[in-house]
Amino acid sequence: MAPSSAAAIVLAAGLGTRMKSSLPKVLHPVLGRPMVAHVAAAAAQAGVDRLVVVVGPEGDAVARVVAPHPTVVQHDRLGTGHAALQARAALEGFTGTVVVLCGDAPLLRPETVRALIDARERAGAGVAVLGFEAADPGAYGRLMLEDGSSLTAIVEAKEATPEQLAVRWCNSGVLAIDGAALWGWLDRIRNDNAKGEYYLTDVVALARADGRACVMVPCSEQEVMGVNARAELAVCEAVAQTRMRQQAMADGATLIDPATTYFSWDTRLGRDVTVGPFTVFGPGVTVADGVEIKGFCHFEGCAVAAGASVGPYARLRPDADIGEGAHIGNFVEIKKATVEAGAKVNHLSYIGDAFVGAKANIGAGTITCNYDGFGKYKTTIGAGAFVGSNSSLVAPVTVGDGAIIGAGSVITRDVEADALGVTRAEQVQKSGWAARFRDVKRAAKLALAAKAAERNSPAKKK
Amino acid sequence: MAPSSAAAIVLAAGLGTRMKSSLPKVLHPVLGRPMVAHVAAAAAQAGVDRLVVVVGPEGDAVARVVAPHPTVVQHDRLGTGHAALQARAALEGFTGTVVVLCGDAPLLRPETVRALIDARERAGAGVAVLGFEAADPGAYGRLMLEDGSSLTAIVEAKEATPEQLAVRWCNSGVLAIDGAALWGWLDRIRNDNAKGEYYLTDVVALARADGRACVMVPCSEQEVMGVNARAELAVCEAVAQTRMRQQAMADGATLIDPATTYFSWDTRLGRDVTVGPFTVFGPGVTVADGVEIKGFCHFEGCAVAAGASVGPYARLRPDADIGEGAHIGNFVEIKKATVEAGAKVNHLSYIGDAFVGAKANIGAGTITCNYDGFGKYKTTIGAGAFVGSNSSLVAPVTVGDGAIIGAGSVITRDVEADALGVTRAEQVQKSGWAARFRDVKRAAKLALAAKAAERNSPAKKK
Amino acid sequence: MAPSSAAAIVLAAGLGTRMKSSLPKVLHPVLGRPMVAHVAAAAAQAGVDRLVVVVGPEGDAVARVVAPHPTVVQHDRLGTGHAALQARAALEGFTGTVVVLCGDAPLLRPETVRALIDARERAGAGVAVLGFEAADPGAYGRLMLEDGSSLTAIVEAKEATPEQLAVRWCNSGVLAIDGAALWGWLDRIRNDNAKGEYYLTDVVALARADGRACVMVPCSEQEVMGVNARAELAVCEAVAQTRMRQQAMADGATLIDPATTYFSWDTRLGRDVTVGPFTVFGPGVTVADGVEIKGFCHFEGCAVAAGASVGPYARLRPDADIGEGAHIGNFVEIKKATVEAGAKVNHLSYIGDAFVGAKANIGAGTITCNYDGFGKYKTTIGAGAFVGSNSSLVAPVTVGDGAIIGAGSVITRDVEADALGVTRAEQVQKSGWAARFRDVKRAAKLALAAKAAERNSPAKKK
Repeated sequence: MAPSSAAAIVLAAGLGTRMKSSLPKVLHPVLGRPMVAHVAAAAAQAGVDRLVVVVGPEGDAVARVVAPHPTVVQHDRLGTGHAALQARAALEGFTGTVVVLCGDAPLLRPETVRALIDARERAGAGVAVLGFEAADPGAYGRLMLEDGSSLTAIVEAKEATPEQLAVRWCNSGVLAIDGAALWGWLDRIRNDNAKGEYYLTDVVALARADGRACVMVPCSEQEVMGVNARAELAVCEAVAQTRMRQQAMADGATLIDPATTYFSWDTRLGRDVTVGPFTVFGPGVTVADGVEIKGFCHFEGCAVAAGASVGPYARLRPDADIGEGAHIGNFVEIKKATVEAGAKVNHLSYIGDAFVGAKANIGAGTITCNYDGFGKYKTTIGAGAFVGSNSSLVAPVTVGDGAIIGAGSVITRDVEADALGVTRAEQVQKSGWAARFRDVKRAAKLALAAKAAERNSPAKKK
Repeated sequence: MAPSSAAAIVLAAGLGTRMKSSLPKVLHPVLGRPMVAHVAAAAAQAGVDRLVVVVGPEGDAVARVVAPHPTVVQHDRLGTGHAALQARAALEGFTGTVVVLCGDAPLLRPETVRALIDARERAGAGVAVLGFEAADPGAYGRLMLEDGSSLTAIVEAKEATPEQLAVRWCNSGVLAIDGAALWGWLDRIRNDNAKGEYYLTDVVALARADGRACVMVPCSEQEVMGVNARAELAVCEAVAQTRMRQQAMADGATLIDPATTYFSWDTRLGRDVTVGPFTVFGPGVTVADGVEIKGFCHFEGCAVAAGASVGPYARLRPDADIGEGAHIGNFVEIKKATVEAGAKVNHLSYIGDAFVGAKANIGAGTITCNYDGFGKYKTTIGAGAFVGSNSSLVAPVTVGDGAIIGAGSVITRDVEADALGVTRAEQVQKSGWAARFRDVKRAAKLALAAKAAERNSPAKKK
Repeated sequence: MAPSSAAAIVLAAGLGTRMKSSLPKVLHPVLGRPMVAHVAAAAAQAGVDRLVVVVGPEGDAVARVVAPHPTVVQHDRLGTGHAALQARAALEGFTGTVVVLCGDAPLLRPETVRALIDARERAGAGVAVLGFEAADPGAYGRLMLEDGSSLTAIVEAKEATPEQLAVRWCNSGVLAIDGAALWGWLDRIRNDNAKGEYYLTDVVALARADGRACVMVPCSEQEVMGVNARAELAVCEAVAQTRMRQQAMADGATLIDPATTYFSWDTRLGRDVTVGPFTVFGPGVTVADGVEIKGFCHFEGCAVAAGASVGPYARLRPDADIGEGAHIGNFVEIKKATVEAGAKVNHLSYIGDAFVGAKANIGAGTITCNYDGFGKYKTTIGAGAFVGSNSSLVAPVTVGDGAIIGAGSVITRDVEADALGVTRAEQVQKSGWAARFRDVKRAAKLALAAKAAERNSPAKKK
């Protein structure tokens, strides 16, 4: 049986005051991707085919991130029940399972979402709630259970009796609800409670009142942790990193120290890749088999082919495309450039908007001058070319296959294949000049010191 | 009621043998500041207005660090009671509370010092002792308590009975003592004990003998941990870092990984600052709102204005002053230089003793030649100027507003505003030169190999 | 009494499938050294004087690493008893203690190996087994004990009764066996068990059957952990790093954050060395007393003399030899080069195949052009020389003592002592050029924009 059709409402209207940020809370990134995008992606991977995001009045930035998923605005923050109700126009008529997700809880896995949907449908339940055993239940809503998983009510902590507060099973805020009954229950939620809010959690009691079963599906506390402050964001990031690191190692990469290797959500490492300490993979990075990353490296939007060697202290920026067995060494920045197989850029270079042919050797201190203050231009370096150290290649310019560029040259015109291209002033030697220079400098220093001493002498002072 | 007057004696004469260091123990830094300076600062923030530091015979370096607080020398290390007694001349006649602090316990917070002083004064106690429940009481002195907080004696572990050793409340070494009675009690301390030392802790028993109450004020074990070895120093550092990191996040900064972001005691980060992994803030750093620090960065004594972008791999040294929205990129060092708003120094540059005007663009590989082996000279780059890559600006020199410097130039004379300044030898091309060079090199290699083969041939060998 | 003679069999034939690697499992490095080499070294340090490594059919790479120790090939993987038996030819006739070690358990310490050998010999036991109390015994073989340390049998988990599985003492796989009886017992091991394998552990029952005592020697679970997956390799690495870090601190080095300081097995740091966060010591590094390493540094095969200052962002590669009090600054790479006392290479330089004399000053951006595509050549810089910024020194070349090189020069011929050497084209100024350049560029931009607008205009579109 194919997974049944499901829809999702993502609650993303929270103010996030404790973040002390001008960025909406759900847009703070984890693994280099906004939290709300993680939630949407988990839903999609769980087989959810319609998704609506409920945002606050200042939710334009969120809307741009979650597009093409539609957003609806909750103008007044009257509680989670009210928030979910805003999705009615977008989802009315849908009679499958509607999952309510939290835009600030990015660790939820697709398989857990799927399990929740399946549990509801298998039981024919009105509501299925993802519950967790809290280490410190504190302010979480408590799940009132019968026989382990049959749910009779969710009681918000502020409304709970001491007995109810003693319950350790807590509400994750993630619910799967029968779409055919959802809007009717939401309509019936009232706000006559301690906080004066419409609690989404009341759907459980309402479903039960309608004679519908409700169930709890357990999950770990960590997986449903929400982010309300930057310290919690950092904890979320750490958990997400651990997942990525463990997966990369299971897939055959060696991370010398997993704790100092940072992944993005979409990083892909091949087998027998070795990653030294202090490496950051930004979004959009693919590293093929057998690549050695010597640590202290920073990657974004780039690809490294099999057997290449990178770092230490290499920065590969977007559209850096490193060929098989190529060497990218220390203090090297590559941006929007193809470095073909076996080429070497080993030291202190900036290669931007460029093509470096196979087995070319780019000397230390080489810079592609790709920008003139107005536009960017391309540098092409042929296969087997040798660019001497400290050279400047003023783009647009082409260095032909097998050409050699003399050290320290500023190349402004194309150099043909197999030619030597060089700019070089005559070397001049002035014998004894350095010795005389030092004598003059020292004499000046002594004179200055003598003057200062004189100024401070008692004779002068009176 | 204003906090009452208090004085402090900081014990800083310990030998620190286990540190295996030629630096006095209390000068080893935590958060970039000597431990003893943390202790003195905590006292000052707690409202202590007089402070004396007891140092060992080799305490000159300590005296320089704690100045203008006075130091007194304990010539013979005869115990903590004897150490405190050295402060008599400096504090005699003072009748407020005298707090005794440990110069090697830098985690003590000002609010705890204040709480201890207040507790003594509120109770009219002879002595108030900061106590902690030790996970492993070991060699700590034990606090003999009645009714939870009333203290009858402190018993050193070496003098304790098995029953006394079973007590978990331990002496932190931090005491607040009635200044009017202190010197009398110190005079009466005797050294007829297992170690033959004058124990400061005996003041409790002496105060009790004089009919004075003594109290214990509880604190965490961590807060009063002392440093006797480098591994303990590392633990202290880690605890102190955690405090700083949590505070920075609470104040609205995102630390992608708090564990690889290092603060100094005086680091100040604004709101919506983002800090990538691998960043070190040395002393004297201020970062304004909205700055993005891309990681792998090292800061000391510098300021970064709002909205600037720094790194990865940027080093801002003392007196680097980065303007609003400026960009400092990879492998860039800035020292004693102002970079005005919107200016860019994006790649592989050294900018020292310099002024970079607003919106100037400094090309990759630009170096300010600020030193001639004798003195340092200034480079001034005007607003909107464009410095081509791999240029050397030989200071003192000025590049005017809007001027352009050709790539690879060595600029030794001022360039006027809106002018082009360039040094450039003619580009020369020698067709086929590279191919011939390779032929010659390969032939030489072959000849060498042939010779070697001949040398090793059996005919030759006999 | 001198330690008795002992031999070792190192089992290193495991497939390591879960590593997902083309490198044999036992060659994966910990602390920069293959795991099997750690095991061999521990045996040697424990006084084991003969060592045989049992490898799989594809064991050539292992053989090269463990040489000069001999290897024997286990062609069919029929169990640990069968594996040990392969060493018979190599060790037959040896009647001392034979220790069986695991090539994938690199944390075993020499003193533990020695203790095991000594325990067997002291007890005259047939077999002594290193046992550990497992947190989760799972699939480990269980040790059947009488009176705490007398061992009656080892039962593999697959063969164990529920009662036997309840035993927490587990087999580490490390055994010390009476060499005089070993081969007879190995011959008698049968494979009529759940896995159809020859279990080495059966020697215990066989020894007992022969009336020989067997003993268990306890050790920590961590010390005998084996590596079967990359995540376990990372855990091993972390444990090994912790040992090195603690030792370095105990010996008098300050590690600002031990957790981000990585050692190799042979790293040696002096007293009062300070290491900033983010430092990697590859193999073969010696750092003398009082050196300051400012963090973000990468070392391999190099030596740093007393009082030198290195980093941040310095990379010292093999055969970098840094003199007393020398300064190596940021974004600097040193390879196969001697930098004599007091010399400074402070910024953005590559010094390779070079000699830098005492107190020489190497300006920012200096590059030794040591490679011409075929060979490497040497650069010699005399004592007290001053090399201007952005200079290229084209090797082979010598800069004499006290000589000065002008900024931006490309030095291809020797410069004599105390002379000035320089290559420099005349500085040219074209007044107003930059302003005109911008006008032209802006006009071109506007023209382009106008054209684009025209192309998109409705009149054109129809």
